Amino acid sequence: MRPDINPNSEKKISFIQSQLTAFDTEAVLILDLKNIRYLTGFTGSDGALFIGQQFALLMVDGRYVTQAGRESQGLDIYEYRDKTTGILTVIKDKNIKNVGFEPVSMSADIYLKIIDGANDIFLTPLMDLLNSMRAIKSEDEINLIKKAIDISAEALKSVEPILRPGISEMDIALELEYKMRRNGSEQVSFPTIAASGINSALPHASPGRRKLKDGDALVIDYGATYRGYHSDETWTCFIGHADDKQKEVYDIVKKAHDRALGELRSGINAKDVDAIARSYIADSGFDGFFPHGTGHGVGLDVHETPRIAVTSDTVLKAGMVVTIEPGIYIPDLWGIRIEDMALIKEDSCEILTKTPKNLRVFV
Amino acid sequence: MRPDINPNSEKKISFIQSQLTAFDTEAVLILDLKNIRYLTGFTGSDGALFIGQQFALLMVDGRYVTQAGRESQGLDIYEYRDKTTGILTVIKDKNIKNVGFEPVSMSADIYLKIIDGANDIFLTPLMDLLNSMRAIKSEDEINLIKKAIDISAEALKSVEPILRPGISEMDIALELEYKMRRNGSEQVSFPTIAASGINSALPHASPGRRKLKDGDALVIDYGATYRGYHSDETWTCFIGHADDKQKEVYDIVKKAHDRALGELRSGINAKDVDAIARSYIADSGFDGFFPHGTGHGVGLDVHETPRIAVTSDTVLKAGMVVTIEPGIYIPDLWGIRIEDMALIKEDSCEILTKTPKNLRVFV
Repeated sequence: MRPDINPNSEKKISFIQSQLTAFDTEAVLILDLKNIRYLTGFTGSDGALFIGQQFALLMVDGRYVTQAGRESQGLDIYEYRDKTTGILTVIKDKNIKNVGFEPVSMSADIYLKIIDGANDIFLTPLMDLLNSMRAIKSEDEINLIKKAIDISAEALKSVEPILRPGISEMDIALELEYKMRRNGSEQVSFPTIAASGINSALPHASPGRRKLKDGDALVIDYGATYRGYHSDETWTCFIGHADDKQKEVYDIVKKAHDRALGELRSGINAKDVDAIARSYIADSGFDGFFPHGTGHGVGLDVHETPRIAVTSDTVLKAGMVVTIEPGIYIPDLWGIRIEDMALIKEDSCEILTKTPKNLRVFV
Repeated sequence: MRPDINPNSEKKISFIQSQLTAFDTEAVLILDLKNIRYLTGFTGSDGALFIGQQFALLMVDGRYVTQAGRESQGLDIYEYRDKTTGILTVIKDKNIKNVGFEPVSMSADIYLKIIDGANDIFLTPLMDLLNSMRAIKSEDEINLIKKAIDISAEALKSVEPILRPGISEMDIALELEYKMRRNGSEQVSFPTIAASGINSALPHASPGRRKLKDGDALVIDYGATYRGYHSDETWTCFIGHADDKQKEVYDIVKKAHDRALGELRSGINAKDVDAIARSYIADSGFDGFFPHGTGHGVGLDVHETPRIAVTSDTVLKAGMVVTIEPGIYIPDLWGIRIEDMALIKEDSCEILTKTPKNLRVFV
């Protein structure tokens, strides 16, 4: 196991073993590849992790036997030709009668084949065990996230010179992604959003052929990935000039963003953090112009537990890494979103994102 | 519906409706996003397509209502807040008792919620309906594939000047991907393989920090995507010089490749095409050094029906677009793979890939 990626594999697997009785299962079968990576360090594109009271098997096909042994030292590696057949063989060999599984990550195909192939097997859906574990980041994980943030912040700074009237959204997105990759990003965190002018009024616009014009808002939502860990940031700037209305709205979004970050701490409820940003925007005259949640956890997935939204009842805890990303979108005109990542501490938070969020105009 | 992407949506959906009786179901529920795109033109990142004898509903969440209406003109759009709840509502409203579904594309979570939520519902797994339909390409689809091939071939040519001792595999992959994007590729077809020297002996190596050296084989396996359609090509060249053994093996792989292409036509069995390449390699003294299949279909997915492999009993048909990609890998030394795409015709095939496959050395 590479110590810089996953030093706590044994501890994590022991924790899961300690939970089996509480979940009333003899074993858990983990198929989500991010969860497998989190627990074992294995980075291959296919596999299964089968954990029982007395065993932990990392199951892979022939392509990945060597890699699994290298990345997940100390774990038993099981080689299969067909994954479901391998799982059924383990169930039979160990005479397992009750298996916990992740219903979102298992296909109906595998589910039905297990039910069919193992006599009297009972499959228990486990929704949340791994999500809660993964939400609290270790120091190593925080360092990998910080590295992804460094890579992306440096790339954003290096594309500033091209932010001028005439360049297309697609070219901005492409140059930014290229710079992140050159700076050491693996595949980028998600397809970059570069939305200008009227397109910035759509929270999830894809970059297109539209070229920047004087007076545009430009929303860039982007991130890098380093050893599997993501960064996620949104930065809004203006091209040529910003008019009074744009300046006013920028200021409101920035204050909503800062206030939510100001209250972020261990023990606060996620929906209360959402309410701080949402009510500030509503009280400033833009009720109904902020149509998405305030934030989300970030780690091996760019969106993970916790959600920070109107309906999210999660109590936030120290060690969680979350985004705060309020926005105001004026239909058919333009939109502004400001997003930073923060590490939750006992009595406050540490803002991880590097890019300053003062209003900037590129001429 | 944009006529250049999906002119035959209505015809395809009518065909599925005509098959419902044969499959003994009242309706089919399609969750695979590529299948939804194939049938409707819709390109969003979430949704469902529900087809019954008398209806076809494209089901999307609020983000995608406008887009679905624009991309899939003529289809009824159904907006849901929660996908499974939406599906259950349609099942109840239309009093459906038997639904066909794709077991690999449906999660156990949705499967169990449908079983739980709809009284007396019967879910019938349908494995192969869409795969067989998608395997035969229309003229429009072939044109999009050709465009993806043009984009990638041009990009490969433009990175030739950097293929010199000292450049790293990662830099080659990054520059090639950047050029494909600049030439109009959407996200690249799959993460580029650039494997040099000893790494080229592994069929699925990821590009790393290794730098090219004199005497290296360099295997580049890469592709572009245009309006959803993929290209896929492997090109092996040599750095500095190629020794006699490398020249000999290159020639064997090239002849295996050419012979398989020479026999590709409508009516031939996929495993017989595989056998042509495999037996030529074995007869040339490299039995056991070709550890993967000879090819696969390419379309909206980079790997799709048909497989061309030892165990693949599919009869190939005119209109299929497949790869032919034999390789020889000398453990711990180097490997050579040559891959072109071809369109199967009645009595022959048309090679679609543009890059010539003569042996090339870069000094």
